[in-house]
Amino acid sequence: MLNQVEHIGIAVRDLADANALYTRLLGVEPYKMEEVETEGVMTSFFRTGETKIELLMATRPDSPIAAYLDKRGEGIHHIAFDVADIHAEMARLKQEGFRLLNDEPKRGADNKLICFIHPKSAGGVLVELCQSIPESDTL
Amino acid sequence: MLNQVEHIGIAVRDLADANALYTRLLGVEPYKMEEVETEGVMTSFFRTGETKIELLMATRPDSPIAAYLDKRGEGIHHIAFDVADIHAEMARLKQEGFRLLNDEPKRGADNKLICFIHPKSAGGVLVELCQSIPESDTL
Repeated sequence: MLNQVEHIGIAVRDLADANALYTRLLGVEPYKMEEVETEGVMTSFFRTGETKIELLMATRPDSPIAAYLDKRGEGIHHIAFDVADIHAEMARLKQEGFRLLNDEPKRGADNKLICFIHPKSAGGVLVELCQSIPESDTL
Repeated sequence: MLNQVEHIGIAVRDLADANALYTRLLGVEPYKMEEVETEGVMTSFFRTGETKIELLMATRPDSPIAAYLDKRGEGIHHIAFDVADIHAEMARLKQEGFRLLNDEPKRGADNKLICFIHPKSAGGVLVELCQSIPESDTL
């Protein structure tokens, strides 16, 4: 099963502007920024209880975030759920008829193994599974 | 400030179909369903850690959810943040330049006082503030 909502991903055009806006909205400042080169995104994170807010800015035109902004504009991009065993959950969800966007987990921001589920198979919601990588792991 | 993410609202066309889909996805069943007559919605709630998932189906053509589905299709509709004092947060956010969709808090699902912030003033995200109503209150 999926555990708690680990974070909510929000697509933004300009990360500096969005950091200022979300700081005014949430009343807290981002606690870290991190680039995920493989996904073509720069991220920033806000701590809002158990569920974090992750802002996502495209760093190149072929980034999935650039495509999202072109199509839908700024807004909520995905929901990420924490899972204890990402391989087991990927197998379970495949069995249940969900369409996974990658066959093997990949490395995401914030020291996670991640996998996305296609929104067409999940009620229009882009769902991310994420499992924390133990500090000791040398992936 | 906004405390934790209380729930994520997802617009769906058919609540029975969506309940079945999200039960398969999340691995848990909805723990309650509730109609909010004033908003023209039928809701169901899934417990996923601190942040719940709320599915929203329109119960009449003039429901905000019907308008959303026509425009954007099924998907993530809003993020709701728990606040300790909704009147104080509404005043703070107004001061910060956010556009509130109602001047006074109104009654939402799940025994809450709620207020929405216009997505145009909040980076394309429909933000809900919600404060739990103490059991003893006779609103």
